[in-house]
Amino acid sequence: MLRIAVLGCGRIGRMHIANIAAHPRSKLAVVYDTHTPTAQAVAEEFATTAARSADEIFADSGVDAVLIATATDTHADLIEAAVAAGKPVLCEKPIDLSLARVNACAKKIAGTNVPIQIGFNRRFDPGHKAARDAVVAGEIGKLHQVMITSRDPGMPDRNYIEAAGGIFRDMVIHDFDLARFMLGEEPVEVFAIGGRLIDPDLMDELNDHDTTMIIMRTASGRQCQINTSRASNYGYDQRIELLGSAGMIQSQNRKPNAVRKFGAQTVESATPYLEFFIERYREAFDAEIDAFIDTVENNQPVQSSFEDGHRALILAEAAIKSVAEGRFINIKEVN
Amino acid sequence: MLRIAVLGCGRIGRMHIANIAAHPRSKLAVVYDTHTPTAQAVAEEFATTAARSADEIFADSGVDAVLIATATDTHADLIEAAVAAGKPVLCEKPIDLSLARVNACAKKIAGTNVPIQIGFNRRFDPGHKAARDAVVAGEIGKLHQVMITSRDPGMPDRNYIEAAGGIFRDMVIHDFDLARFMLGEEPVEVFAIGGRLIDPDLMDELNDHDTTMIIMRTASGRQCQINTSRASNYGYDQRIELLGSAGMIQSQNRKPNAVRKFGAQTVESATPYLEFFIERYREAFDAEIDAFIDTVENNQPVQSSFEDGHRALILAEAAIKSVAEGRFINIKEVN
Amino acid sequence: MLRIAVLGCGRIGRMHIANIAAHPRSKLAVVYDTHTPTAQAVAEEFATTAARSADEIFADSGVDAVLIATATDTHADLIEAAVAAGKPVLCEKPIDLSLARVNACAKKIAGTNVPIQIGFNRRFDPGHKAARDAVVAGEIGKLHQVMITSRDPGMPDRNYIEAAGGIFRDMVIHDFDLARFMLGEEPVEVFAIGGRLIDPDLMDELNDHDTTMIIMRTASGRQCQINTSRASNYGYDQRIELLGSAGMIQSQNRKPNAVRKFGAQTVESATPYLEFFIERYREAFDAEIDAFIDTVENNQPVQSSFEDGHRALILAEAAIKSVAEGRFINIKEVN
Amino acid sequence: MLRIAVLGCGRIGRMHIANIAAHPRSKLAVVYDTHTPTAQAVAEEFATTAARSADEIFADSGVDAVLIATATDTHADLIEAAVAAGKPVLCEKPIDLSLARVNACAKKIAGTNVPIQIGFNRRFDPGHKAARDAVVAGEIGKLHQVMITSRDPGMPDRNYIEAAGGIFRDMVIHDFDLARFMLGEEPVEVFAIGGRLIDPDLMDELNDHDTTMIIMRTASGRQCQINTSRASNYGYDQRIELLGSAGMIQSQNRKPNAVRKFGAQTVESATPYLEFFIERYREAFDAEIDAFIDTVENNQPVQSSFEDGHRALILAEAAIKSVAEGRFINIKEVN
Repeated sequence: MLRIAVLGCGRIGRMHIANIAAHPRSKLAVVYDTHTPTAQAVAEEFATTAARSADEIFADSGVDAVLIATATDTHADLIEAAVAAGKPVLCEKPIDLSLARVNACAKKIAGTNVPIQIGFNRRFDPGHKAARDAVVAGEIGKLHQVMITSRDPGMPDRNYIEAAGGIFRDMVIHDFDLARFMLGEEPVEVFAIGGRLIDPDLMDELNDHDTTMIIMRTASGRQCQINTSRASNYGYDQRIELLGSAGMIQSQNRKPNAVRKFGAQTVESATPYLEFFIERYREAFDAEIDAFIDTVENNQPVQSSFEDGHRALILAEAAIKSVAEGRFINIKEVN
Repeated sequence: MLRIAVLGCGRIGRMHIANIAAHPRSKLAVVYDTHTPTAQAVAEEFATTAARSADEIFADSGVDAVLIATATDTHADLIEAAVAAGKPVLCEKPIDLSLARVNACAKKIAGTNVPIQIGFNRRFDPGHKAARDAVVAGEIGKLHQVMITSRDPGMPDRNYIEAAGGIFRDMVIHDFDLARFMLGEEPVEVFAIGGRLIDPDLMDELNDHDTTMIIMRTASGRQCQINTSRASNYGYDQRIELLGSAGMIQSQNRKPNAVRKFGAQTVESATPYLEFFIERYREAFDAEIDAFIDTVENNQPVQSSFEDGHRALILAEAAIKSVAEGRFINIKEVN
Repeated sequence: MLRIAVLGCGRIGRMHIANIAAHPRSKLAVVYDTHTPTAQAVAEEFATTAARSADEIFADSGVDAVLIATATDTHADLIEAAVAAGKPVLCEKPIDLSLARVNACAKKIAGTNVPIQIGFNRRFDPGHKAARDAVVAGEIGKLHQVMITSRDPGMPDRNYIEAAGGIFRDMVIHDFDLARFMLGEEPVEVFAIGGRLIDPDLMDELNDHDTTMIIMRTASGRQCQINTSRASNYGYDQRIELLGSAGMIQSQNRKPNAVRKFGAQTVESATPYLEFFIERYREAFDAEIDAFIDTVENNQPVQSSFEDGHRALILAEAAIKSVAEGRFINIKEVN
Repeated sequence: MLRIAVLGCGRIGRMHIANIAAHPRSKLAVVYDTHTPTAQAVAEEFATTAARSADEIFADSGVDAVLIATATDTHADLIEAAVAAGKPVLCEKPIDLSLARVNACAKKIAGTNVPIQIGFNRRFDPGHKAARDAVVAGEIGKLHQVMITSRDPGMPDRNYIEAAGGIFRDMVIHDFDLARFMLGEEPVEVFAIGGRLIDPDLMDELNDHDTTMIIMRTASGRQCQINTSRASNYGYDQRIELLGSAGMIQSQNRKPNAVRKFGAQTVESATPYLEFFIERYREAFDAEIDAFIDTVENNQPVQSSFEDGHRALILAEAAIKSVAEGRFINIKEVN
């Protein structure tokens, strides 16, 4: 039983807390939040204790590992502290909104053997993983193209957007990671466009985008295409398509049940998709914890590493530069 | 070019006339209808002539074959006349509503080598046929069960129903034929129930049914299940399912296009099914003509024979008897 | 937290034990099995204790309720004992293979207010339940027909079959219950056929069947059709179809993921279905426990009652009689 | 009956000849091919005559309209000749591989009221058209993104590729036209990449590409994404997806039948897609002829005009420039 402390008791932190508490191979050791009443309420609900500080957790010998789900601008500091304390880390994405800060963090922790896993949950989705496994097993021959569709079910609120660092660093970063995972090679060139189609006024004011399209290419010539939207009115849409020389594989959307309805206007209508990420990627979040435990307890390789977090951010930076300049950006230009 | 005369210019007759006229291997020779103005109008539309009588057609050396699409109670007489005249026949189902009359007709034409094909169009549907072909090719091992779903899109009008001979002889007879085709063996026992759920008053008055379920079994033990409805509000529903020891095959519904719609209430909604039989079984009606031409011109075996029409009617009679007596009826009891 | 004791540590008992242990609203109180080493091993695995007898459990004030997953021939005795001890019961189906024994049990416990829930898990499946809810909500108008497809992925071993009481009492009983649940009315007439198509020698020897078809009718005329097979080589197949005057609803199969593969031979191929019942009905088994807790703790009505277990067995008896006599059997004839 | 002459008796010409001959509203007037024996054989097969020259056709008062299906480099000349002769034209795409030649042709025919339709058949596909119609009807609110997947089932032979003008002018030009049709606005910026993944040696030698990805944007900010492959081993793949503020629509692939197969390895497997374009777009080619007849006989507007052919070529030129320069190309730069 891995004793895991959770730092950050917001929406995603609470989800991890519940998952860790229910997981047969982990135990919720202690929780922490900068807002003490929140931490105490969560601690009570899950029959554990609330730490008074992050440092208290890093010093606690009853804590085997930490999960970081705090505000983004604290991630790098906490990763460094955890590494210093020798506590394995599972940290929510992104590592930081600043590539300079991520580079500095990378330098600081260079050479550590403390495991650091970044929370790119989608890699662990049974469907997405089965698709990737099939490619690795050679089922579609040589991989030629990767297509990713990624649409959130609605615009986040203004506060969230203001702090999020822009759609590429906040939302599309998941798709950049998934693209790297599916391509099996590093994209070296990035082209992107950003649109203000859903809430033009807000996007103008915040200099952000709500709708994007991206093309990437690896050194060997594999191609990748991403399209994203902040507000798909028919629900959370998460699809991957992999085209190879000998076949094609899709990982399609998950539905809450397998009901189909037939009426005078439409037939074969399905129940709307599972939303939002907590429901859609439920198995993925569990498998992510599982993989983390395997890394810490059984020396399995980290499946979604600090360097993966670093690389995804580089792609986001390249996309942002491409939007500004209307060019295919080589990732060397941003790193 | 097979020169085909068409007797009967009603809905189904007109459809055959158009098909024959457009078919690259057939030529519309002449048309006939008891209602002369109808025949003349159709003749004009398709640039042919209208015969003054059926006899004129049977005597016409410019007619290679006849298609009978007249009122049901004339079918047997016209088949006999065609056989006497040596004209190959493609006759709409059913041969007659009376099993005695069919038996008498069979006796009269016994030994003829004039080809007689009965219009069981569904056998010729590309999907249904591909399903049957896969069974014959051994793709699902030994066949165990056949499931047929057959729902018309709406109640016919009262006049039609009054003349139709009851749902088993009129509508379900198609499914009895399809069951025999799919089973590859003769059903020897029949159980059926009939319901009055759609229009109970009319069904009571006419002593008919609008909703049925049937179970049949062959001598070797293969099982078959049919469900039918006169009025499926979501459209014409025509499905077949074949279960074998090594797999399962479905022939599902056809749709007019491959569009899927996604909205706030439902996702993956398809365009309603093709209806009615003229649209749904368009390729089947063409393939039926094709098969007829192959039989007449190339001595290919009849694919849907007089005996097939006879056997389907026996199953209908057994079903009617089963509804009355609540028993598994052996087909010997009705023949 | 409802403290539940589990009697019976076989396959299904173990599954319930794991579910109860992980459920946020229940606690595994104690376990029992006639084979003591099994009970002890399970107790150790789930960090609880093993009782030395069933009586010890019924006398235990630390036990709020019991789940009975023992051999079928002990169910009725244990239900009676639980009722006598005032312990709410969740008992696996069937109550007993003998209708006389079930009737006697019913008589003995008549008037009790101790809740008794029978383990008809399929009622709790999210898809099946959503389908039924839609009917109740009037989405398809008046219900006319219910179609149930139910195929197990492989023949059970000989020992299981010998003790199971025949396919109707063992396997089809689930479908009889589901039919009652979906029809919303009591079937009053039953017709059934049984085939020996998968393992004819074994079925002959044991006087059992491996393949069945059933038709049932309610007093108001609603129709129901079931087809079952012990060995579907493509996996566990569980489908329901509901036809009404204003639409149709299907609850289709669940798949482990939403991957589709495309190759030179086939396209849009899905991953094989979840099997067997423990995986396919995982959410249903959880929801079953949930409903039981709601009944015990919140006085919610039992959703799958002793009487439901009784009625399903009556339908099985009617089906067996129908197979023997080739008749539509009125349920009064067997009760 | 519109009397149509067909110039060019190659694969696509023959298809049009058969369609025109079978169409209820058209008559095949005469055929022509530079290879006289081919023209004569086709004329014989379709019971018509072969002209000795194109000029003979333009001078023929028995010809109401012409369909041009000759080699690409003759299209512009023949369009000009047809316009001079006052014969309405249905010309296969592309108008010419040279934008300069198309511009010159446009200048020469400027102001003519002779109808000129370009053979962008996909606009007439029932599924694609229904998708576009739904957008026009407001079913998905404001259109935000268009996604087009377009994969041919195999590499054309070397001779074809050498004459085709490159993948963008030859194959992707269909997708550029479809993108314009679906967007309802003119794309003003184009980014494209081209890959040599299927047959790198041949592509290197011919300086062509076999795999592409494209992003386009309209003046109002609508986004479009295309991915193409010359060789999809699972068949001809033709899909469109339209995302709007109030929903999403897909026009998916057509299959030859609605059969699904279930076995031990895969379930729900469909029959491979219809291929190639002649089968997949059969209804579209018919509807294209229909629209042409409506234009000539009933003064309906041309649905796929010379200017559409012109615009699609401009997009192809912009894509080619983008591949060379790695930039978002404004279409003004190439026109």
